Amino acid sequence: MNFALILRIVAVLLFLIASFMLIPAGIAWYHGETGPLLSFAVPILGAFILSSVLFFLLRKAERELRPRDGFMLVALSWISAAALGALPLRLSGTIPRYVDAFFETMSGFTTTGATILTDIEALPYSMLFWRSLTHWLGGMGIIVLTVAVFPLLGVGGLQLMKAEAPGPSVDKITPKVTETAKILWLIYLGLTVLQTVLLLFGGLNLFEALTHTFGTLATGGFSPRAASVGHYTSAYVHVVITVFMILAGTNFILYYKALTRQFTSVFRDAELRSYLGIFATAALVMAVALTRSGTYSSFGESLRYAGFQAASILTTTGYATADFALWPQITQLLLFTLMFFGGCAGSTGGGIKIVRIVTLAKQGFHEMKYLLHPRGVFQVTFGGQTVRKNVLYAISAFVFLYLILLLTTSLVVASGGFDIVTSFTTALATLGNIGPGFGRIGPVENYAFFPDYIKWYLGFIMLTGRLEVFTILVIFTPTFWRN
Amino acid sequence: MNFALILRIVAVLLFLIASFMLIPAGIAWYHGETGPLLSFAVPILGAFILSSVLFFLLRKAERELRPRDGFMLVALSWISAAALGALPLRLSGTIPRYVDAFFETMSGFTTTGATILTDIEALPYSMLFWRSLTHWLGGMGIIVLTVAVFPLLGVGGLQLMKAEAPGPSVDKITPKVTETAKILWLIYLGLTVLQTVLLLFGGLNLFEALTHTFGTLATGGFSPRAASVGHYTSAYVHVVITVFMILAGTNFILYYKALTRQFTSVFRDAELRSYLGIFATAALVMAVALTRSGTYSSFGESLRYAGFQAASILTTTGYATADFALWPQITQLLLFTLMFFGGCAGSTGGGIKIVRIVTLAKQGFHEMKYLLHPRGVFQVTFGGQTVRKNVLYAISAFVFLYLILLLTTSLVVASGGFDIVTSFTTALATLGNIGPGFGRIGPVENYAFFPDYIKWYLGFIMLTGRLEVFTILVIFTPTFWRN
Repeated sequence: MNFALILRIVAVLLFLIASFMLIPAGIAWYHGETGPLLSFAVPILGAFILSSVLFFLLRKAERELRPRDGFMLVALSWISAAALGALPLRLSGTIPRYVDAFFETMSGFTTTGATILTDIEALPYSMLFWRSLTHWLGGMGIIVLTVAVFPLLGVGGLQLMKAEAPGPSVDKITPKVTETAKILWLIYLGLTVLQTVLLLFGGLNLFEALTHTFGTLATGGFSPRAASVGHYTSAYVHVVITVFMILAGTNFILYYKALTRQFTSVFRDAELRSYLGIFATAALVMAVALTRSGTYSSFGESLRYAGFQAASILTTTGYATADFALWPQITQLLLFTLMFFGGCAGSTGGGIKIVRIVTLAKQGFHEMKYLLHPRGVFQVTFGGQTVRKNVLYAISAFVFLYLILLLTTSLVVASGGFDIVTSFTTALATLGNIGPGFGRIGPVENYAFFPDYIKWYLGFIMLTGRLEVFTILVIFTPTFWRN
Repeated sequence: MNFALILRIVAVLLFLIASFMLIPAGIAWYHGETGPLLSFAVPILGAFILSSVLFFLLRKAERELRPRDGFMLVALSWISAAALGALPLRLSGTIPRYVDAFFETMSGFTTTGATILTDIEALPYSMLFWRSLTHWLGGMGIIVLTVAVFPLLGVGGLQLMKAEAPGPSVDKITPKVTETAKILWLIYLGLTVLQTVLLLFGGLNLFEALTHTFGTLATGGFSPRAASVGHYTSAYVHVVITVFMILAGTNFILYYKALTRQFTSVFRDAELRSYLGIFATAALVMAVALTRSGTYSSFGESLRYAGFQAASILTTTGYATADFALWPQITQLLLFTLMFFGGCAGSTGGGIKIVRIVTLAKQGFHEMKYLLHPRGVFQVTFGGQTVRKNVLYAISAFVFLYLILLLTTSLVVASGGFDIVTSFTTALATLGNIGPGFGRIGPVENYAFFPDYIKWYLGFIMLTGRLEVFTILVIFTPTFWRN
């Protein structure tokens, strides 16, 4: 293990995060929030000094990163980001206990959106802004990882996307990552500006427009409002956020393609079609159920609420415009089902992801052909290309381990005395980086009541889900630590 | 499609089932149940005539059965068995509506044990006996299918067992099936006699001993008692049934091996070890939780109740000695988790089955090795033999389709206005052929309240689960019906 180089890169990351903390520090200064300002200043200064010292001390680190170094680096990056990011929340007393501050920040950086806050609107502006900014930074990190890094490492079958990624060559990781990252971040930034402007038109102030944009584009779900997006009654705001949640759950490579006028390639994208198909079907069925039950007065209004919630859960954002725990059972079951799906690969969305589900569905169909024609040759294709066998294996292993983690996490939660719905949907909502679920973690509830050991464990599970399961689990195998 | 031969074989099957109906008819005669006696006589006579006529008319049917004929034959066998078996229940007025009688009988033949009866003990002896006998017959059928037929057809990765099955040759299906079937049925009969005698020692009368033996060995779960096995307070009875549920969930090939003194092969069986390990772990954890919560007064008593329930759910039997819906949450979540597992392949147990779960767990572990050593070669082995790639594919497809069916079934149930726990565990309990679940289908509840369309659908799902998913789903593919 090349710990020297790993720590050196983590030091750079901490330096970057501390730099971003200057923004909420500025907000604290602007709003005269003295306590929060100090609570930002200390960790920022500490991180600047510590990371500079580490960077200097480790300057002789060997340059080579092997796969296992990569996994350790990615895991440590998220953990140290959350550990540092939690400090201002804890120091300012905004969140009195470190376990809660760590949970909240991990939930932010993993774009989960699960919160332990019970009185969100009582928080200082600077803290609310920082909380939302962790989403935006986490989303930025995850896009680059899933588009440029994980496919090269072969994590969870994301090699599927290898051929698709922009950039001159897949042989050398460094130039590719740098170039790809630049393009993707520009797109991410562009979408951020666009949504913020559109929300400003909708009557939100800059603070609210920015924080909700961060929560949307990262498919995070933190809102500075206790009632989440439901705080706003404007249909325009609901629709803008719905559209941008769907955009955030889309593979970002498609935006690159659209920008370079490869429109046919975008329209023919198999994952995009399935993703939009699943969203539209769920939203329509839910809208019909909401109209029939009289929950909303018109089909149009039902469709707006159903579309928002379907997009929010499918993309693993977790925003709410209504307490869907009061909706008809079939709509709740549809949302429950969507919790298994998730966004597209290469998006900020979590969950199992559409590309894996479509590939496995095709493979299941092929298995039936083999039953009828045992000597036939059937190949699973995706987007016109044959899916290689090792990719299929990786995807199948991913889904299986995902299921095992769901059940294990349910058991851990249940050990605290929680019922089946709470335990199982807490597992779904944290492993899938969604946020809200059903039962005691419903859309108007929060995670504050869980005992500490469950909070630590859920922090670990949010990270595991966010990093495509394998990245974290591999660290716990004996092979990882051998020689 | 060779419909002529398929119908001819189904005719033979109906003849056999009608012959078995002579037993409850005899019981009706012995107990002076005139109405029930007539209700058996008519279908028996009808089936004898119809099947003889069909058998004679179709005597010129071509002899060859291709895979697709095999799938259709298996599906039609179970459907026509349930359709015929439902008649006495309906005709006697014991179950006033055919949809309910069909559900109950399908639940019997698929060894599910889900019941629509609200007042079980009010039923005539003959009807109770017939209901339990459908379990025993269904279990007998499923053992032969999973040990001798499905492996040859390659259903759901059960080829794993191909090399294991007794019999002289795997090339010719007919002699193999006949010989294997004979051995397996003798074992099944032997276990039946043994358990019946042991239950007689426990103070049960012959009727109760037989019906509970049928429910146990088929991992069915029908009991002639409203309180299920909880009706008996004797620890001896609980332990006997616990042991035989575990025996029924074991691969029957192992009994053949034990009888032919291949003891090392039995003790080294990877599936058996995992199966017993899962059972023991779950039972112990549950016993600790039951003791700590004070549900039972001693650890011994807790272990007895925990062991019984863990065995009952893991093997997909569905018997209950207590209302586990009142137990601590962690025990409920453990039972919920066991609902995904199921018994061993080649047993009468349903569910995903241990062999598939162990194989996928090993493969998941291998995928992590590949991440660290991309050019390495790692092969999944089971019981010392390398698992072929096509078997791994089939298993992965099985688990994926199982999950999709679970979610689809939950949605169908929820469309009737039922909550998440009821909808999802109804899906688990029917697809996994378990019987009881949580929520409105808890251990002291029943399936009577579901609307008709849900009952028909659940009948279909019980069949799909029982026949290893693929056997039924393949019939709905376009390829099946082409040329």
